[in-house]
Amino acid sequence: MQHSIVDSSFAAIHTPAGAILYASDFKLDRTPTIGEAPDFTRLKKLGNDGVVAMITESTNSGLSGKTPSEKIAKDLVCDVLLGTEETESGVIITTFSSHVARINAIIQAAQEMDRIPVLLGRSMERYLSIAQKLGYIKFPENLEIYGNRNSVDKFLKRVSQEGKKEYLPIVTGHQGEPNSILTRIADGETQFRIKPGDKVIFSANTIPTPTTIANRYALETKLKMAGARIYENVHVSGHASREDHWELIRMISPEQVIPSHGNMTMHSSYVELAEDAGYVFGDTVHIMRNGEELVL
Amino acid sequence: MQHSIVDSSFAAIHTPAGAILYASDFKLDRTPTIGEAPDFTRLKKLGNDGVVAMITESTNSGLSGKTPSEKIAKDLVCDVLLGTEETESGVIITTFSSHVARINAIIQAAQEMDRIPVLLGRSMERYLSIAQKLGYIKFPENLEIYGNRNSVDKFLKRVSQEGKKEYLPIVTGHQGEPNSILTRIADGETQFRIKPGDKVIFSANTIPTPTTIANRYALETKLKMAGARIYENVHVSGHASREDHWELIRMISPEQVIPSHGNMTMHSSYVELAEDAGYVFGDTVHIMRNGEELVL
Amino acid sequence: MQHSIVDSSFAAIHTPAGAILYASDFKLDRTPTIGEAPDFTRLKKLGNDGVVAMITESTNSGLSGKTPSEKIAKDLVCDVLLGTEETESGVIITTFSSHVARINAIIQAAQEMDRIPVLLGRSMERYLSIAQKLGYIKFPENLEIYGNRNSVDKFLKRVSQEGKKEYLPIVTGHQGEPNSILTRIADGETQFRIKPGDKVIFSANTIPTPTTIANRYALETKLKMAGARIYENVHVSGHASREDHWELIRMISPEQVIPSHGNMTMHSSYVELAEDAGYVFGDTVHIMRNGEELVL
Amino acid sequence: MQHSIVDSSFAAIHTPAGAILYASDFKLDRTPTIGEAPDFTRLKKLGNDGVVAMITESTNSGLSGKTPSEKIAKDLVCDVLLGTEETESGVIITTFSSHVARINAIIQAAQEMDRIPVLLGRSMERYLSIAQKLGYIKFPENLEIYGNRNSVDKFLKRVSQEGKKEYLPIVTGHQGEPNSILTRIADGETQFRIKPGDKVIFSANTIPTPTTIANRYALETKLKMAGARIYENVHVSGHASREDHWELIRMISPEQVIPSHGNMTMHSSYVELAEDAGYVFGDTVHIMRNGEELVL
Repeated sequence: MQHSIVDSSFAAIHTPAGAILYASDFKLDRTPTIGEAPDFTRLKKLGNDGVVAMITESTNSGLSGKTPSEKIAKDLVCDVLLGTEETESGVIITTFSSHVARINAIIQAAQEMDRIPVLLGRSMERYLSIAQKLGYIKFPENLEIYGNRNSVDKFLKRVSQEGKKEYLPIVTGHQGEPNSILTRIADGETQFRIKPGDKVIFSANTIPTPTTIANRYALETKLKMAGARIYENVHVSGHASREDHWELIRMISPEQVIPSHGNMTMHSSYVELAEDAGYVFGDTVHIMRNGEELVL
Repeated sequence: MQHSIVDSSFAAIHTPAGAILYASDFKLDRTPTIGEAPDFTRLKKLGNDGVVAMITESTNSGLSGKTPSEKIAKDLVCDVLLGTEETESGVIITTFSSHVARINAIIQAAQEMDRIPVLLGRSMERYLSIAQKLGYIKFPENLEIYGNRNSVDKFLKRVSQEGKKEYLPIVTGHQGEPNSILTRIADGETQFRIKPGDKVIFSANTIPTPTTIANRYALETKLKMAGARIYENVHVSGHASREDHWELIRMISPEQVIPSHGNMTMHSSYVELAEDAGYVFGDTVHIMRNGEELVL
Repeated sequence: MQHSIVDSSFAAIHTPAGAILYASDFKLDRTPTIGEAPDFTRLKKLGNDGVVAMITESTNSGLSGKTPSEKIAKDLVCDVLLGTEETESGVIITTFSSHVARINAIIQAAQEMDRIPVLLGRSMERYLSIAQKLGYIKFPENLEIYGNRNSVDKFLKRVSQEGKKEYLPIVTGHQGEPNSILTRIADGETQFRIKPGDKVIFSANTIPTPTTIANRYALETKLKMAGARIYENVHVSGHASREDHWELIRMISPEQVIPSHGNMTMHSSYVELAEDAGYVFGDTVHIMRNGEELVL
Repeated sequence: MQHSIVDSSFAAIHTPAGAILYASDFKLDRTPTIGEAPDFTRLKKLGNDGVVAMITESTNSGLSGKTPSEKIAKDLVCDVLLGTEETESGVIITTFSSHVARINAIIQAAQEMDRIPVLLGRSMERYLSIAQKLGYIKFPENLEIYGNRNSVDKFLKRVSQEGKKEYLPIVTGHQGEPNSILTRIADGETQFRIKPGDKVIFSANTIPTPTTIANRYALETKLKMAGARIYENVHVSGHASREDHWELIRMISPEQVIPSHGNMTMHSSYVELAEDAGYVFGDTVHIMRNGEELVL
């Protein structure tokens, strides 16, 4: 399948009575930037052979339409990075360390911007080093990585001396986590000082919990007070939307469906979708709570 | 400039004291699908020569970041039209008749879908015929156009006989206007009957007035009750967002700025942006009401 | 029980296996303005004797806290009607014809304002005449009622001659229904012309459907353009909130609970509440769809 | 005037050219629970004598209607405290230490509940002791006050031994401030343990900043996980709403008006209200920024 991490898969457990399909953490992305489109032939065959039950994420089943491809995110990132007349400004971009495809797009854009891409932070170092070893991503020669705090701070000092326009720092901290690199920069705890007109790009959504919202708000407020220009949500989701679910449920035609990976409201949305596809609540589509057992 | 209609322009009125720039209905689109990117060289020269006052739209100045390019809208439209395994379903798409670039993208996608693109409705006929005559758009040979109600209804009857999978109707009615083609289809007043699984794609935003919201809600409810799958907001705006305004005001460096084309809330957003850029409310950036006069 | 209509009741069906309680359309109002507080002694006895299943409204179970008493609505209405220095202005008030307690409060306020209360509209005439006959409400001697359109229009013409400050019209039309009296007044179709400073009081909520919202918006816009001062939502709900449900479920202690009178989102809220009270989803609290059967 | 603190006043500065009225922190409360209604006779006389300029809060000028009286808040508080069949549960109530009228209502309700009212926290001790000395409030004989942390904790330990049903603790911490008493109780740092069914009543609004919202969310989540029943927003505002502003501006008829005590959005709302009353933006009603000067 496709998802915001590489090599996401479904698990089909084959039993004498038919298959059980565990179908979570996916999107139907036909133009991914790493890996291939979902294997629709295999999915259809699974459906034809008969699936007894499908357990599937309800996460974004309440969002109308179809989740945009990662290709769209790549174009949005490039347009923000390259589409400006103010090419001398400082630019910092933050995204999920685990999102190898996104970081790949950013690294390619850095080349076009004629800036050195620099991965900063322990999790950036860990994820991307592994991704490179496994061959998911190819680093350009000029790429730099600094994982631990000392080397990060030394690098940020160097930038302050050599000029921000030479580098594109790719950092952690998009959720405003205290002690992340971006928060430390916003707090003036590094030598990299935000100046009016510097750009800070969030290639991530804000996770919708009050604590995260508050952290992000605090982070953005400090950045803005220093004069930063903010680009939020230069991002697309890794989860299927309502019409992607519609396609999947019709392709698989499971006898029973159980939404998972969501709260009651998300499950309710999935139930309504399944009802559209002919399922009957309490009979062929079920809402379950943790620890509950369903005998088919 | 670029905008959701072709050949949008700024007007610079040159006076002995310097230029007055009227800068409304624009976006800074560097990858447009019709026409060229804004003429940044000319804009910078205007700024260098000295602009006494700039009157500019405040419409989307409260939206963070940068308005995505029309290229993004094109990719979103293609992904929705082409990215499906259910290739036999009926599909209807609706957008602004005046949005020639968008309709061009839809027509091209129809070719790839191996469907005949059909423009339906009087305003579709009027706008696109002119666009073709002026050379903005090139029609494929199999394209059909039906403007008046009789010919529209005759065509929809033909579709019901020959099969929906041969055609891609491009219609008016995205705001749920009573008597528009899409509303008439939803009401069952034509021979084109919505069946479960048929797709209706809104390549347009909903204009945020209560009446429009109610009309759209009524339209979508009827479509859903007939079993339609809905794709909303497959669209990008034609208006500059906050960071586009930041770029423009810095490029032009007008002595005075006056937001226009918005309400008090939108103007307030623009004033805050202008303050970021060093302007002073009541001194170099002004909120004005219709009919008011400002002596510089 | 108490509700926004008088003499609302629960129905207990007694069977050899225990009672089934149908508990919908209620609030736990201890200071009602017509009738008595709910019979808590009886409710507790029912609970002690054993209730096999309770079917109860989930409508407002997602709203935190406790629904305010009708006494609060009475005080809010009086404060708006009496609490002003502009005692000469025109005043119109609109509420539900079926809400006898509310209309009683308005009539009493009219007496204190030294204005003649006038009930306008067919449904006002019908409901309040019956309420008077059954003894729920006592009309003051000066009260006037006009039901059909001719007599309403004749009365409104008389007001325009004698002066608005003599009367308090109590009208239908709070949802902006086309052809209601209030909409006709807003449209200038009667002799009662809205002048700047006239007050229009909505002693009702807006029913949250897009069509109603649009109608109300259109109505208020026309009223404001004529200069009316608008008082919205001078009202309290007739439905129990989350903590009222908490009290009821603990008082009754039914073996099984089934939320009704709501959509999936409302039922989900009720399930979470029932879970707080020790019920188990799918085991002792059930979400059901229309037409479904549950065997206990 | 009336406000959420006692003895709030307007300041009129009399000059040979007429008076300047500073009219902020007020509501038009005709049924206050401490002190008297605003002095409308004096306000009208000021207006008749001529006011050159009025500077007034715009805070709630965007909220429709009229701010409810403190009497309403008193009734809501009493209904939540007294209107329950679960009279043995623990109950904690939190409000602003500076809101003497509200605390007075709570103390009176405690008497009716047959519980001992206990003021907890340094600011409760300070404000209420002064209020008592100045005669704004009369303490019942059984009231207890504990200001510093040691005595608070000792009291909470005593409650845990003697039983929660004897006391009504009135505490600080409604905004979820870390280290406040309520947060410490929620964190299990005191001997007062929240048990399922205990009630926590917020007689305050949540101040709408992301940090406060996050703190309140964290606080309520912890309370709910321990089984507390939550009553939010048992409260009315201390600031005038749109129609209160309408009354004031018409009563005073100042030559010039300047909204203050708000952001651009709030000021914009006030300007629209002033325009309704015949003022002209930029001519007789002005939006000003901190530090700016206006010459009349």
